Amino acid sequence: MTTTYTGPAPADFADVRATNLAVVLGYVRGNAPCSRADIAASTGLNKATVSSLVGELIDRRLLRETGLTERRIGRPATMIVLDGAPYAAIGLDVTADHLTAVAMDLGGEQLLAWRRSLNGRGAPASRSVAAIAALARRALARMHEQGRQVLGLTVGVAGLVDPAGVVRRATGLDWRDVPLREPLTRALGQPTFPVTVENGANLAALAEYRYGPYAGTPDLAFLHGEAGVAAGIVTGGRLLRGAGGYAGEIGHLTVDPEGPECDCGRRGCLQAVASVEALIRRQSGSGQGGSGLGGSGQSGPGQGGSEPDADLEPAVADAVRRARAQEPAALAALHEGGRRLGQGVAVLANLVNPGVVILGGYYVPLAPWILPTAAEELDRLVVAPSPPGVRLVASALGHDAAAIGGAAAVLDSVDAGRLPLPAA
Amino acid sequence: MTTTYTGPAPADFADVRATNLAVVLGYVRGNAPCSRADIAASTGLNKATVSSLVGELIDRRLLRETGLTERRIGRPATMIVLDGAPYAAIGLDVTADHLTAVAMDLGGEQLLAWRRSLNGRGAPASRSVAAIAALARRALARMHEQGRQVLGLTVGVAGLVDPAGVVRRATGLDWRDVPLREPLTRALGQPTFPVTVENGANLAALAEYRYGPYAGTPDLAFLHGEAGVAAGIVTGGRLLRGAGGYAGEIGHLTVDPEGPECDCGRRGCLQAVASVEALIRRQSGSGQGGSGLGGSGQSGPGQGGSEPDADLEPAVADAVRRARAQEPAALAALHEGGRRLGQGVAVLANLVNPGVVILGGYYVPLAPWILPTAAEELDRLVVAPSPPGVRLVASALGHDAAAIGGAAAVLDSVDAGRLPLPAA
Repeated sequence: MTTTYTGPAPADFADVRATNLAVVLGYVRGNAPCSRADIAASTGLNKATVSSLVGELIDRRLLRETGLTERRIGRPATMIVLDGAPYAAIGLDVTADHLTAVAMDLGGEQLLAWRRSLNGRGAPASRSVAAIAALARRALARMHEQGRQVLGLTVGVAGLVDPAGVVRRATGLDWRDVPLREPLTRALGQPTFPVTVENGANLAALAEYRYGPYAGTPDLAFLHGEAGVAAGIVTGGRLLRGAGGYAGEIGHLTVDPEGPECDCGRRGCLQAVASVEALIRRQSGSGQGGSGLGGSGQSGPGQGGSEPDADLEPAVADAVRRARAQEPAALAALHEGGRRLGQGVAVLANLVNPGVVILGGYYVPLAPWILPTAAEELDRLVVAPSPPGVRLVASALGHDAAAIGGAAAVLDSVDAGRLPLPAA
Repeated sequence: MTTTYTGPAPADFADVRATNLAVVLGYVRGNAPCSRADIAASTGLNKATVSSLVGELIDRRLLRETGLTERRIGRPATMIVLDGAPYAAIGLDVTADHLTAVAMDLGGEQLLAWRRSLNGRGAPASRSVAAIAALARRALARMHEQGRQVLGLTVGVAGLVDPAGVVRRATGLDWRDVPLREPLTRALGQPTFPVTVENGANLAALAEYRYGPYAGTPDLAFLHGEAGVAAGIVTGGRLLRGAGGYAGEIGHLTVDPEGPECDCGRRGCLQAVASVEALIRRQSGSGQGGSGLGGSGQSGPGQGGSEPDADLEPAVADAVRRARAQEPAALAALHEGGRRLGQGVAVLANLVNPGVVILGGYYVPLAPWILPTAAEELDRLVVAPSPPGVRLVASALGHDAAAIGGAAAVLDSVDAGRLPLPAA
């Protein structure tokens, strides 16, 4: 019985150096300000090695010394902090109704966070791609104005993205086989930094793993849903992408065979029953006269399978208003939608056993009314023994999660020791 | 915005040595016989380092030189192969009706493969645990007779296993909160090698990843089901265990809300509809007079939710006989069961996007009749663009898969550079 070689990569001394640079950078990211002695004590690296590594990182302007010293026994220590002033990582997120751009320095400080309306569903894909490119160019220009070198740009899209950066399908945007990476790279003048396109839920899961209240939880999942419903899954501290990068597709899970028709032609898919659009339709269909998804303040009961063409934001705001006003039918609709959502989350939880599942996007403002029934259903259906069970929470990162994750994906690459070239 | 330090571990020179030992061992495992020069050329390590590493591995009797030389340009090279003669890794697998034991040397050669009947469901858990310990003791004794040092023992159980080695629930065995690791360790006289208990489907997935026809496929899933149905998932080349080690629980996914009652009290769970027991019941219920699950050759139509207490093997053999005889109702039952199984596999495939899903255990003999409809349903329901899509195949490892995986889990630990102590 033999097998092909799939073992670890060899560690030569260049790799050791890269790994150790990554270790020092990661330690300072989490513990700055700190001294060289702190780094040596915590990482197990010897002091001479730490000095050499810190020296290189200072040369590349990834770290800097502060004037601060900390008096302990013996000599005062020079404290080290992240520098990264000359660098920026950019993340963009594309949904049916909004574009979001975030830029971060190496310390994870946000340099900009922009949100723009996008009539993604009503417009031809080419116009949306042009809008994405325009926003990316503006973010780049802003970074250049600040004298920063851009390390990379990652675009999240709520849809299936293939390895070449073609969006194979995006429910909310009504896209099929829309190339995004290639025209975007062209529009940016073939930059030397990497331009990447990734599923938005995957990026949001990365953002939660790196910056959310559950940062560092090695097994977590993020779930959002406007028109479609999709999950991003982190397992063992790594993003679960799967063979083609298509993991986390939970939107067409059947949760109610008698339920409303889905755009896939079947009935009662999770996204037809418990996406944010479905929750709004369910509430509008409850006959309380809400504005629903008719857009522009016009009211009209939604229908299963109908395709709203308006911004979700006012419809969600209206749903929240009605729930706050304790309208019984509005509450019942959200409770029932939450229950169905919990059934979907339970399937995810049983298959990948996350410690926490985080609801994001427009689920966040609706959370007070959908979380309790969803959590109840999750508890009922999860197979794993409790405690510890699975926690279900609302995201604290808001609508920026996927864009933050896009920037974080760029920073992760630097943190893995793939350092930027020294500035000219 | 800061985060706790979750970066890579530092690479000091002891780690480099362990990593490089692992690299050399892994390379020889996949490519023996090979020369020191081959190893250096393929791994990127320099020749002096390779010589030193190979020397240490020969000292520990993990590698040996063969008399063979291969004449190429220049000097003849001494060829290296795995030794491992003095070592053994043991895997056990526990299902409702059988115990399986496998021992392997470091080269993955099977040293023994035993299969014993177990009336696991009929008997109190303590009796089954005693039978497991007795088989483990016999396997250990056999290895000692051969003068081998045992590196570790891993037991797979078709059920939920907690981190302490307590089986929290095992449907087929009717176990609830049965400690296994502790009494087994005691029965083996508190050995110095590690004794581990793990979900059987997880171990089978490891075996497929290491030794099956799809070895090295970084994203694959294994699915088996006698009473319950469970998956083992490998993603990015690593076993997906989840927060508590409970990943892969797909048995209570609702696939047919109008279907037969499940032992969880709900209707139409995957395991009530498409486990091997359910397939047999479905076939028996088709009124063709098969022996069904009555056991001992008695016939009797099965019922949804009924608890068979007999060995599945003769019932499966009978199901195969009837299908081969082209009994229309028997064929229809398997086709329909396969269709339902495909619905479950599609949910798994959409969530974790494996390149291949492997059906194991008693699904293998039934594969000619369940695979086609399952694959058809999978194609229909999978969201990921095709090609490449998801392949659905029957396991080539047979009933030994989980036990092989148990031994492989021990070998993986050695391959990661955690070498056994030098023999006394």
